[in-house]
Amino acid sequence: MDNTDKPIGIFDSGIGGLTVLRAIARKMPSESLVYFGDTAHVPYGSKSAETVTHYSLTIARFLVKQKVKMIVVACNTASALALEELRRQIPVPVIGVIEPGAAAAIKATRNRNIAVIGTEKTINSGAYKAAVRKLSRQRHEVTGLACPLFVPLVEEGWWKKEVTLLAAREYLNPLKTCGADTLILGCTHYPVIKDMIGKVMGPGVSLVDSAEAIAGEVEWRLEAQGLRRRGRKGGVEIFASDDPARFRRLAKNILGTPFKEVTLKTFD
Amino acid sequence: MDNTDKPIGIFDSGIGGLTVLRAIARKMPSESLVYFGDTAHVPYGSKSAETVTHYSLTIARFLVKQKVKMIVVACNTASALALEELRRQIPVPVIGVIEPGAAAAIKATRNRNIAVIGTEKTINSGAYKAAVRKLSRQRHEVTGLACPLFVPLVEEGWWKKEVTLLAAREYLNPLKTCGADTLILGCTHYPVIKDMIGKVMGPGVSLVDSAEAIAGEVEWRLEAQGLRRRGRKGGVEIFASDDPARFRRLAKNILGTPFKEVTLKTFD
Repeated sequence: MDNTDKPIGIFDSGIGGLTVLRAIARKMPSESLVYFGDTAHVPYGSKSAETVTHYSLTIARFLVKQKVKMIVVACNTASALALEELRRQIPVPVIGVIEPGAAAAIKATRNRNIAVIGTEKTINSGAYKAAVRKLSRQRHEVTGLACPLFVPLVEEGWWKKEVTLLAAREYLNPLKTCGADTLILGCTHYPVIKDMIGKVMGPGVSLVDSAEAIAGEVEWRLEAQGLRRRGRKGGVEIFASDDPARFRRLAKNILGTPFKEVTLKTFD
Repeated sequence: MDNTDKPIGIFDSGIGGLTVLRAIARKMPSESLVYFGDTAHVPYGSKSAETVTHYSLTIARFLVKQKVKMIVVACNTASALALEELRRQIPVPVIGVIEPGAAAAIKATRNRNIAVIGTEKTINSGAYKAAVRKLSRQRHEVTGLACPLFVPLVEEGWWKKEVTLLAAREYLNPLKTCGADTLILGCTHYPVIKDMIGKVMGPGVSLVDSAEAIAGEVEWRLEAQGLRRRGRKGGVEIFASDDPARFRRLAKNILGTPFKEVTLKTFD
């Protein structure tokens, strides 16, 4: 197989990374995509760095066996905790979601005051703060807030429920006082409830969807390495480590289009 | 050490099993208790039987090293999926929560129509239905319903929040039409939000708190084996596999009394 024709591997702890898959598929419809949702171990956001790194390496090795030309870590927690180790051990380029999100936020903010929401581990890692500092020579205020219930709410499929809006108010109302004009959705599950988050934050705050940001980064990296595929539409293959039927149902709602099947793939 | 003086081991995926610890401590204040909360792997309720059995065996072996005289599986998911294997491999008596809960429900129901709520795995296992059938010669209607968000809501500490009440309504309103006069709280996390569940179900439905039921079973089993400890107050030792400071904070709220410390204990 020509390297260009190889698929892009994408993984997440669950269905959240499908927002990244959707953004990549829209931007580069000719690319073939292989997705792995680690539903047996979701959520990653409350687990230790060692555990998340172990899961991430196992999945990445599986994707390499599927002959991917690049791996997108479509999970902020794994990007924050495991990216370096993945880059050390995996023989294809590995792209995380933190830097593209941070870059988009720097571009969006007018008052250099950025807020970021994510899982406990992502926020406590300080990864977004570090990325903003690395990517801009100007000083930015960066306020982080963990919203642990958003992942289970999205995985439950309660995307339009009053419960989720109430949870969003509970978490985000205190954040509105920090003066940020830009909010990074620092977890790939969050774009699924972007409208609700926007409703709570109000029109004065720009939301940075890391899914969009990462699709841009992937395109740029593929171009730079001469790996961009053109021509007819690429395929999508999806694996989940638990309950593929449920995954397929939720995935259909996120992607808007039904697809053939989700294959169960467990390790050990 | 005299066998009678040995502690009782109790474990759960997180803080939920503390409702069992509390019930045992109230009923038998002289017993010493060792608790393990597997916060690194919570929730168990969406994981495969193999994974839950592996975690349960690892924890049980750790408790055996702490010289416990009995192990209480204070987690419905682990009781439903791993109890047989635990009894096969662990050299002290192992007590699950399913049978005591089922027995209490059979005693409570007037119309032989029982509902049970729990995690996806507990409900899908059909363990409560099987236990009711095993324990009673009379026919009972048993309706199961999974409430996956209750565990994350309790672990987040949102016990009195409007969000949780709304989630309870979302799950339980459809259950009210099944005609059950008794509802088993088939997850040790649920007694923490018992008042809210009762509010939604209304006064016509008896709630069976498996924590109370299991404390009775433990007392009976200790008496039968001559292992009941009497005399001065027993100690409580708590281990958690992730974030012990957070565990201690939440545990204090459940137990009502502060305690010295929670020790971090990780495996592999």
